[in-house]
Amino acid sequence: MVTRLLIEYDGTDFAGWAVQPGQRTVQGELQAALATLLRESVTLTVAGRTDAGVHAWGQVAAYPGSPVRLASLNALLGPDVVVLSCEEAHPRFDPRADALARTYCYTVLARSAPSAFRRRTALHWPYRCDRDLLHACAAALPGAHDFTAFTPTETEHRWSTRTVETAEWRERGDVLELWITADAFLRHMNRTLVGTMLEVAQGRRALDDFVALLAGAHRRDAGHTAKPHGLALAAVRYAAAA
Amino acid sequence: MVTRLLIEYDGTDFAGWAVQPGQRTVQGELQAALATLLRESVTLTVAGRTDAGVHAWGQVAAYPGSPVRLASLNALLGPDVVVLSCEEAHPRFDPRADALARTYCYTVLARSAPSAFRRRTALHWPYRCDRDLLHACAAALPGAHDFTAFTPTETEHRWSTRTVETAEWRERGDVLELWITADAFLRHMNRTLVGTMLEVAQGRRALDDFVALLAGAHRRDAGHTAKPHGLALAAVRYAAAA
Repeated sequence: MVTRLLIEYDGTDFAGWAVQPGQRTVQGELQAALATLLRESVTLTVAGRTDAGVHAWGQVAAYPGSPVRLASLNALLGPDVVVLSCEEAHPRFDPRADALARTYCYTVLARSAPSAFRRRTALHWPYRCDRDLLHACAAALPGAHDFTAFTPTETEHRWSTRTVETAEWRERGDVLELWITADAFLRHMNRTLVGTMLEVAQGRRALDDFVALLAGAHRRDAGHTAKPHGLALAAVRYAAAA
Repeated sequence: MVTRLLIEYDGTDFAGWAVQPGQRTVQGELQAALATLLRESVTLTVAGRTDAGVHAWGQVAAYPGSPVRLASLNALLGPDVVVLSCEEAHPRFDPRADALARTYCYTVLARSAPSAFRRRTALHWPYRCDRDLLHACAAALPGAHDFTAFTPTETEHRWSTRTVETAEWRERGDVLELWITADAFLRHMNRTLVGTMLEVAQGRRALDDFVALLAGAHRRDAGHTAKPHGLALAAVRYAAAA
């Protein structure tokens, strides 16, 4: 039997998803709680291995074994990680390989004063920010591109082409959110896209330069990697049968 | 000269607004920063003296003296308190006496699982919650009422009648927000109103009983005081000339 979990977490106080010795990680916290309830250790597989500081509103993971009571599981977890559902899945369900698409949201607070409430979940951007240029950058993203310029040079990825389904900046007052859906993402890809787009919005980089990077370029040609705390894995999509 | 401040703060790690010896308070934090910039100590007056754990999105305070640079002030404050504006006011401006109305928002997360993101700013309510009954309670609030039942017995208030302008529960999925505007509020009034309304929504108290309390009753007749972390002082209204 395979059990599927839907999870939200505030990544602020985690060293990312993946287990690391001596560090507090989401996977480690969940596996410890599950081992207590199942009376045996389990290893979770996951849809998106988020980095340190990155959040999730709809992370999907799975383990071989039976579902546990949701309230019992949440009672064993810290307040910054919550399991929203815990249900039996298809016996060959693989949250990573079966995912058809991932949606991420990167939040920017574009105003001079910082925020007491969004400091853990939004990048504070007190600089110039031309919203029309942000929209123009996003409009260039849909389609298949070589994202080599947007991932560290020493990477584990063998292929650097990814297909973006949709990409859109949504505005709510001072809060700007980049919603982006793709088949998969390279390491740091979202954060480096955002960092580079903000350089365009600030007037420090030409729009054409950003668009040209999507044809494939060296990492040093793209902009900075925006801080992790603005990023959240919003949702993962599966075929209806999965 | 009098200077007026517009302030937002996450009340989680503060022992409330008002200075208390040996405690971290919003007033204490602000006065220390202002004393550094003004090179003399100042005492702030304030529109709403929020309790420990209560937040503010639009608190208004004032001090005798000149405005300071916003960025310099925020640089001296912790990340959980942010001054949004700092401007010269009318020379007799009094943020408490001149306030025509205060608006508070109390946020409830009505679902079985807690939230990793709203744990500091919303009351988790995993119990029965009849939304129609919440709306019926709110509909009884506008007008002048004796709120004695909704404030501690040992209180500093001489008059317990307050006039509610508007009161409304707004729903966004699992998030329920009580928006309430009144000329002024008694101590704990919002939180005890919410605690009592939730008892009605849960089916543990009759709607008529809630309505009857608004005619004046003993504190023991009303319900529990809902936790502070769901409450925020949203805005303070002044006459255009103030």
